[in-house]
Amino acid sequence: MATTAEAEAMRRAIALAARGLGHTSPNPVVGCVILDADGRTAGEGWHQRAGGPHAEVHALRAAGERARGGTAVVTLEPCNHTGRTGPCAQALLDAGIVRVVYAVADPNAKAAGGAATLAAAGTAVESGLLADQAAAVNEAWLTSMRFGRPFVLWKYAATLDGRSAAADGTSRWITSAESRADVHRLRAESDAVVVGSGTLRADDPHLAVRGASGSNGASGSNGARQPLRVVLDSKATIAPDARVLDGTAPTLIAVAEDAPAVRLAGAETVRLPRAISGPGLDIPALLGELHGRGIRSVLLEGGPTLAGAFLAARAVDKVVGYLAPALLGAGAPALADAGITTITQALRLELTDVTRLGPDLRITAVPAPTAPVAPEES
Amino acid sequence: MATTAEAEAMRRAIALAARGLGHTSPNPVVGCVILDADGRTAGEGWHQRAGGPHAEVHALRAAGERARGGTAVVTLEPCNHTGRTGPCAQALLDAGIVRVVYAVADPNAKAAGGAATLAAAGTAVESGLLADQAAAVNEAWLTSMRFGRPFVLWKYAATLDGRSAAADGTSRWITSAESRADVHRLRAESDAVVVGSGTLRADDPHLAVRGASGSNGASGSNGARQPLRVVLDSKATIAPDARVLDGTAPTLIAVAEDAPAVRLAGAETVRLPRAISGPGLDIPALLGELHGRGIRSVLLEGGPTLAGAFLAARAVDKVVGYLAPALLGAGAPALADAGITTITQALRLELTDVTRLGPDLRITAVPAPTAPVAPEES
Repeated sequence: MATTAEAEAMRRAIALAARGLGHTSPNPVVGCVILDADGRTAGEGWHQRAGGPHAEVHALRAAGERARGGTAVVTLEPCNHTGRTGPCAQALLDAGIVRVVYAVADPNAKAAGGAATLAAAGTAVESGLLADQAAAVNEAWLTSMRFGRPFVLWKYAATLDGRSAAADGTSRWITSAESRADVHRLRAESDAVVVGSGTLRADDPHLAVRGASGSNGASGSNGARQPLRVVLDSKATIAPDARVLDGTAPTLIAVAEDAPAVRLAGAETVRLPRAISGPGLDIPALLGELHGRGIRSVLLEGGPTLAGAFLAARAVDKVVGYLAPALLGAGAPALADAGITTITQALRLELTDVTRLGPDLRITAVPAPTAPVAPEES
Repeated sequence: MATTAEAEAMRRAIALAARGLGHTSPNPVVGCVILDADGRTAGEGWHQRAGGPHAEVHALRAAGERARGGTAVVTLEPCNHTGRTGPCAQALLDAGIVRVVYAVADPNAKAAGGAATLAAAGTAVESGLLADQAAAVNEAWLTSMRFGRPFVLWKYAATLDGRSAAADGTSRWITSAESRADVHRLRAESDAVVVGSGTLRADDPHLAVRGASGSNGASGSNGARQPLRVVLDSKATIAPDARVLDGTAPTLIAVAEDAPAVRLAGAETVRLPRAISGPGLDIPALLGELHGRGIRSVLLEGGPTLAGAFLAARAVDKVVGYLAPALLGAGAPALADAGITTITQALRLELTDVTRLGPDLRITAVPAPTAPVAPEES
């Protein structure tokens, strides 16, 4: 049974883990707090970037000799394998830790087994403390482990009547500065940002994160780390002066296998199969390609056609909608064809959060669990 | 300066006033609490129905002799005129009330002057206590006094992507039972419910209030009082077996001046001018007609075309949206053409309430005050 001090330490460890969002892929985010033998905080740490020391190592260093006889409180099961860094289970034993409390078991076959190693060495091990909250901060990584593809967050901005642009195509700005700043935060926490060629033509977006640090090791000209910019451009129609080709962040252009040859300065190109039904590229193939590149989280930034393709492929794990208290009555909808023709096929979600952002409303939702089939009445 | 007991009594009076919603038109809703000379509650009352005693009279009756030397706390300035009931100002004086605290001044020229009469007779009079809250409960009546037309509340139900029906026209049910029950409450609090011929053809709605009491004196077959059902049917195409013609509630069919002759059992017909621009009837003419019939509040129930016409006419005072956490990607939008072509013309609103209703979200918003014009920089 975890103590009150351990629960408090786990809450702190989860907050520390969150600091790593956008920097640790293909690894998870992890936070760790070391309590000394008297239950007082002796050291803290979090996994700051892929290739760097794990959370436990940072926390043990901070704790020094006070770790001996103490407890490690960590958001994820300590790893058991030697990758770019040594196994954390052994580091905890070496430091004289006598008790380990972790929240979520490591689903990664390569890294798992830390708990067993610790227990075999006589360490008291407890799991599951605040597991839901710890899993939430790691949802992208856990989802990518489970499905073998990146976690996909679809973000949209719309009026209360579901329009993302006015009849003449203008859309700046539907939502407030507060909402747009929040989108920048989502980008900074994502490994990749995905748009379609329609959005590219209509908005010529830049998709880089202003002053925020990204995730995948590439540095922009301003020194900030940036998410990978991914453009789905099946016909390879991107203009050579598109802003995503400006070199301030890495860019990947995905074209169809039968598209004309392209060579673009400032971007890598990948050829993918076309979707089996509908226009555009095969979404699972795209996600497999990104997963292979170590991408664990994708921010789907639009527009309505691409979002429809992802939803039709059941490849959206979370929806964040920025709703402006405004009405347009005409113009592009936030979402186009998702393969749904009748009300019983509606993609049902569950609201997980509703927050006011300045004048706007941010709605967060996840796909609802499939309703159990009611037994037929006899 | 009002006392704590008086503020508490005003909160209670506002709650009492709300009980009259849907029953008092063309009168306001009013609540009253009588405090005795020691500041204790001696009597309560509210205006229960048009033609019945005013709130003050009910409260004075309940207080009896304890009113003498006491204070009347009332949501609206006591009336000064003899209509179907005597003037409340005089009733308060006759009962020996020595102090009157009211929230909102009566904007109705015929009834106003109560405060002056009371003050002239030596009564201490104070106004403005909890005025915003008291005005909110009377927003329909106050709006109708100000503009000479009914207060219009547009209600819609939609998915997060702004669809009110799926591609094949099915819409039962987009929102939850909780949301639909809330719509029945809105109907019960309204004097009239308005739909267009499109909704009539698509849904054949009944528009009566189940088991709830309505406002305009007509009794349905189940004994409940019902709002007036209003159908905008410029071409007079309503089917004789439409459910709104079933006689369980009064029904008004508004047709164009040049429409074919109609005679419908179970409904009254009125001829109105056509809209100056766009299809359908002239919205201000309709609202004038309803105002003349004593209708103070209108619930606009749809569909997208009619809502667009009302919004284009700037004749919507409040928007209540029931958002289901679902996505459709196709199907009828919640709102059609409202005369807006570019983003700067977007009808901007302000959120006044966001409430979860079961799985859904209810969003309440009012038109934003027109932004002040920024002075040109020199």
